[in-house]
Amino acid sequence: MAGAVRNILFIMCDQLRWDYLSCYGHPSLQTPNLDWLATRSVRFDSSYVQSPVCGPSRASFYTGRTVFSHGSTWNRVPLPVGELTVGDYLRPHGIRTAVVGKTHLFPDVDGMMRLGVDRDSEIGICIAEPGFDPYERDDGIHPSKMVRRSNRTLRYNDWLRELGYVSENPWDEYANSAEGADGTILSGWELRNSNLPARVKEEHSETAYMTDRGIEFITEMGSQPWFLHLSFIKPHWPYMAPAPYHAMYGPTSFVAAQRSDQEREHAHPVYRAFQMHDVSLTLSDDFARETVLRGYMGLVKQIDDHMGRLFRFLKAQGRFRDTMIVFTSDHGDYLGDHWLGEKELFHEQAVRIPLIIYDPSPESDATRNTAEPRFVEAIDLLPTFLEAIAGTVDSSRLEGQSLLPLIRGRTPPAWRDAVFSEIDYSFYPARETLSVAPSQARGYMLRTNQWKYVEFKGYRPQLFDLENDPHEFIDIGDVPEFEPARREMRDRLLTRLLDRRNRVTLTDQQVIERAAQERVNGIVIGQW
Amino acid sequence: MAGAVRNILFIMCDQLRWDYLSCYGHPSLQTPNLDWLATRSVRFDSSYVQSPVCGPSRASFYTGRTVFSHGSTWNRVPLPVGELTVGDYLRPHGIRTAVVGKTHLFPDVDGMMRLGVDRDSEIGICIAEPGFDPYERDDGIHPSKMVRRSNRTLRYNDWLRELGYVSENPWDEYANSAEGADGTILSGWELRNSNLPARVKEEHSETAYMTDRGIEFITEMGSQPWFLHLSFIKPHWPYMAPAPYHAMYGPTSFVAAQRSDQEREHAHPVYRAFQMHDVSLTLSDDFARETVLRGYMGLVKQIDDHMGRLFRFLKAQGRFRDTMIVFTSDHGDYLGDHWLGEKELFHEQAVRIPLIIYDPSPESDATRNTAEPRFVEAIDLLPTFLEAIAGTVDSSRLEGQSLLPLIRGRTPPAWRDAVFSEIDYSFYPARETLSVAPSQARGYMLRTNQWKYVEFKGYRPQLFDLENDPHEFIDIGDVPEFEPARREMRDRLLTRLLDRRNRVTLTDQQVIERAAQERVNGIVIGQW
Repeated sequence: MAGAVRNILFIMCDQLRWDYLSCYGHPSLQTPNLDWLATRSVRFDSSYVQSPVCGPSRASFYTGRTVFSHGSTWNRVPLPVGELTVGDYLRPHGIRTAVVGKTHLFPDVDGMMRLGVDRDSEIGICIAEPGFDPYERDDGIHPSKMVRRSNRTLRYNDWLRELGYVSENPWDEYANSAEGADGTILSGWELRNSNLPARVKEEHSETAYMTDRGIEFITEMGSQPWFLHLSFIKPHWPYMAPAPYHAMYGPTSFVAAQRSDQEREHAHPVYRAFQMHDVSLTLSDDFARETVLRGYMGLVKQIDDHMGRLFRFLKAQGRFRDTMIVFTSDHGDYLGDHWLGEKELFHEQAVRIPLIIYDPSPESDATRNTAEPRFVEAIDLLPTFLEAIAGTVDSSRLEGQSLLPLIRGRTPPAWRDAVFSEIDYSFYPARETLSVAPSQARGYMLRTNQWKYVEFKGYRPQLFDLENDPHEFIDIGDVPEFEPARREMRDRLLTRLLDRRNRVTLTDQQVIERAAQERVNGIVIGQW
Repeated sequence: MAGAVRNILFIMCDQLRWDYLSCYGHPSLQTPNLDWLATRSVRFDSSYVQSPVCGPSRASFYTGRTVFSHGSTWNRVPLPVGELTVGDYLRPHGIRTAVVGKTHLFPDVDGMMRLGVDRDSEIGICIAEPGFDPYERDDGIHPSKMVRRSNRTLRYNDWLRELGYVSENPWDEYANSAEGADGTILSGWELRNSNLPARVKEEHSETAYMTDRGIEFITEMGSQPWFLHLSFIKPHWPYMAPAPYHAMYGPTSFVAAQRSDQEREHAHPVYRAFQMHDVSLTLSDDFARETVLRGYMGLVKQIDDHMGRLFRFLKAQGRFRDTMIVFTSDHGDYLGDHWLGEKELFHEQAVRIPLIIYDPSPESDATRNTAEPRFVEAIDLLPTFLEAIAGTVDSSRLEGQSLLPLIRGRTPPAWRDAVFSEIDYSFYPARETLSVAPSQARGYMLRTNQWKYVEFKGYRPQLFDLENDPHEFIDIGDVPEFEPARREMRDRLLTRLLDRRNRVTLTDQQVIERAAQERVNGIVIGQW
């Protein structure tokens, strides 16, 4: 079938803010290759993650379920063994489902042990991967202490060593370190070095390597259908760009930090505890922030250049005719905005992502080069993939909605008018500062066009009036006159929570069939 | 240790209303054996199930988790393979955990298949049992069509045949049927026969048999510690009592149906659809109701007599010195109250249960023969068992609170002031009547001392003022002046929903340890 989706290329950056691409409005960071993709695609302008942290966010992309439905609530919390991921859905359609790069998911080893599932069996390997066919999984964070303890060899490290970067852990000492004038190794873990070039040639950096590996996978697949999750660790910290990207941006390129004094003076207790994190204090300093921005913006620019290389390859191979291409990120990066570093909370800088979807079908010609303002969530992608490949989506487990109607210019069913995100902050110093129990360290966000409401267990809520305070500087979560707005948002949050899909062992269709079966079984209730 | 709990006998009836025992105030149904147990125990007067339906309610008792946390949302919905049940918690303490009788849980065969778990392996059998060591599981409902299709032999049927009850399925044709004057078999499936005696001798009925089997298990265990879930199918329908119990109760014994005309005139749409079920229409007729009550009350009386036999056995064996005894039910039975039959909705008749807990410890001497008014939920039992056996409870997965502080007269931590229950009504004709999608057929109840609030997805809520309307006749869910009460209850419901424990792959303690581990791993975030 001409124009049908045969393959899916699901590209994810890590910690890429929605507004650090020129097609999303960045004034100085030019990303012509992604901008070009956007001209062939739908650019989703209001896309949100289910949790602004790598692991839980990714688990939602992969399972199509919100965080407290799938249960992998933070990076180190294993995805329960019974959860299905994208490979479980696509493999029955004959599609090899692979990952190149990062997933950040941990296998449920205890769950597997209890059930006697051998980690080296086919399903054991699949769960450990997690859910992808093995190809080149590389979670992208390899401090030397972890590398020393691990019994797995890292292919990227082997490759670097073959190229002459001699080290126990060239990932750390070369790809993510710089070098002082006297030859001292300057670690990328220290933000002060983010203005220096990494100790690898550009073509040996992680972004170049992962792009190469993605191209190799696609080449190897030939005419077989595939799903590739090409998952870059960058621009995530350590913020070390290789030359020449480390030196491309300077003071005239930087957007000023978006923060206000009143955010410190009138901070919600949980927010205040996050402001006190090391990374927040560091990034709140302009000099430190600008040092980091050099690395961060360079890494984004580098990704864009490799996207150009990748798109040219796909074009040459004819893959634009049969491949859906999705470009997105797992969450943003505060970069000093709101007196914060990292991500984890619910300001737009953390929870909003870029999302560009290219659909090869002629049905999408009318929407190419358009911006879609409707609210989209990470859980919408798996249903989109399924509809594109299989034509139907069973929504018994899946909590999102396929975006294909929006992409193909059809009238979708009733669309959401709010987006939802949630966090488990039990692993952070903030929890200890607040003396909150691990199971109580929870936050839940709902945003509409007008309001952003955040419920923190055990605390007053946060509320922002996005129409009058688009930068989210003024928390009116405790201002009496806004009680009606909080009421409305609290009601919506309840409704949203009741929409989780947690009857996972039967589909809706099976429910209907088995209800009929009760009568067939001869169970007669209440007949006189 | 004298007086310590070594064994636990967890007795459950099926569909026994909280108010059909004399110690709970029934005016004519005398249950002296259970009343005697109550004099040695704490009688919990405000105990509620997590769902007023067999399967999901039991799954909550066994997992210690609310229904949309464990996922077995109705009888035919398998418990997901990753859920832990009472055996998983007690076996590590060296306790054999067995069931005699009913569980009504279905194994997650698809989940097991996906993970390559062999049903005949140790863990496969354990999951299929579900979670109990095999002994005498018998789910108690065996219509002949199901028996014919099943490849499992039913021990109770074999036993009846050995006793001379010749039939392919004596459970149906003898134990749950009566006989007409001309020898015709009169099926217990038809409520019209509930005033007739079953075709088995009393000592061959299910209640007698299961009591025998429980006694055999305890005898076999000798001095080894055990947990026995002795789980009677009665007084659940088919409501067929053996002689002489079928004829013990008549018009002077019956409590009048608790119903009001306004309940029909002003019925919430979901409630109205349940009023239209066959069993509701039948039980709304007084003659039918009284026919059923003869069987129902006779079956309760019979259980009480066997409890006497069981308690005498335990006493003679010295088991009252080292055995915790719990007597409860999985939900109630409308028996025509509120124009309803069966259970499934949230009136007290369905959702409230009897709960008597005998603790052998001298620490409980001060509370013997007392009534405990505080709100208790089914999910509190597993933590109670764990505290009694192991001394500690990890509440990372478990959503209830141990009752041991209440039983042993200690000041408990802050206690709940509301109880929660929820239903998936997608399998009922009511869903079809209402044209509701299976994943939308949901109801959630929260009751405090003053209010009972029910949220039905897609409909207005129900509200009852229990102080002024203790019989729940007047639904004020749509009366404007009660909006503040609904607001309050809706807020409490949201708070309760946010308390589900769905980070199940790590305990709270592991969270704390792994948070520290991040730093040990050499992952340094945000240091300058």
